[in-house]
Amino acid sequence: MQSLSALEELMAALRCLPGVGPKSAQRMAYHLLQRDQTGAGRLSSALRGALDRIRHCERCNSFSEAALCELCASPRRDGALLCVVESPGDLLMVEQTQSYRGLYFVLLGVLSPLDGIGPKDLHLDRLIARATDGVVQEVVLATNFTNEGEATAHYIAEMLRARGVRATRIARGVPLGGELEYVDVGTISQAILDRRGL
Amino acid sequence: MQSLSALEELMAALRCLPGVGPKSAQRMAYHLLQRDQTGAGRLSSALRGALDRIRHCERCNSFSEAALCELCASPRRDGALLCVVESPGDLLMVEQTQSYRGLYFVLLGVLSPLDGIGPKDLHLDRLIARATDGVVQEVVLATNFTNEGEATAHYIAEMLRARGVRATRIARGVPLGGELEYVDVGTISQAILDRRGL
Repeated sequence: MQSLSALEELMAALRCLPGVGPKSAQRMAYHLLQRDQTGAGRLSSALRGALDRIRHCERCNSFSEAALCELCASPRRDGALLCVVESPGDLLMVEQTQSYRGLYFVLLGVLSPLDGIGPKDLHLDRLIARATDGVVQEVVLATNFTNEGEATAHYIAEMLRARGVRATRIARGVPLGGELEYVDVGTISQAILDRRGL
Repeated sequence: MQSLSALEELMAALRCLPGVGPKSAQRMAYHLLQRDQTGAGRLSSALRGALDRIRHCERCNSFSEAALCELCASPRRDGALLCVVESPGDLLMVEQTQSYRGLYFVLLGVLSPLDGIGPKDLHLDRLIARATDGVVQEVVLATNFTNEGEATAHYIAEMLRARGVRATRIARGVPLGGELEYVDVGTISQAILDRRGL
């Protein structure tokens, strides 16, 4: 069997990007070689640099080049609030809302018995130690509203309640701009249950 | 000014890919770091490998790792037919039709006076030398149907005609599956002019 040519290898490698199929990979490879070799070189170096330099923050598990990430090292964040998310990408989404000023704990996964991911794989002992350090007053659970995310949130809430720490869950309901006609019944049902006074 | 972090640099570098804006670049960067570090490493190497190893075929200007590309080196292609395309990506599109068995000449551009691209920048002297080598019987002009592509096709056709070489242009008309209601009038007008007997 012939080994892949450099062009074929590039097209195959581009498919590791989310949402990139064979056709997009081909278009990207040709674009880079025909029109943007400088960009291709920069991308190669940036990937290498990111892999070499980015590790997990010792405190919150998010991405960081230093031992402590910028958020954990910042004196301006509210240490009494601790938000639990599944991934560094989720942390970024919460940060972009600019409506949360506390700190974070990134699980780097969710409880998923089917995939063999249990409490130990999520560093839950570190989360509990952190939540019970006397500084944290409230743990905001912001895992996804999937089965695994919900189970994880409930599991953590139970552990925290047993230790007297307040646990809250971000609200579930009709999304901003959502029209009832296009929202699934489960979401509407939850929105009715969680209705609040105006 | 602070220099870019490795993560920011990766997101910025990913934007060299066609169709990738800030939001996609962010999603890609997090995806690679969270879920596919192996893929990221492979992509970095593949980009470097492609930049280092891929050059232009001496004969047709397409991408090749050897002095002659596979097509030019193949004894099974019909040397009497020479297809002129603008870019290696266009060559690939024609190849994928599997309806052409001749050889190619890649212009690596089109005549574009506004951008200062004249006949010399397109290696037209090499194209003429090739077309008049006694082997080539017909030059199939497959430049794009843009103003620049059309002008380039006509310019080359004139040069070839003056030297007694037959030049043809790929057909213009209603695309496969095209419904007249949704096709622009210019295309329909051309399809009527170029109508043929059934």
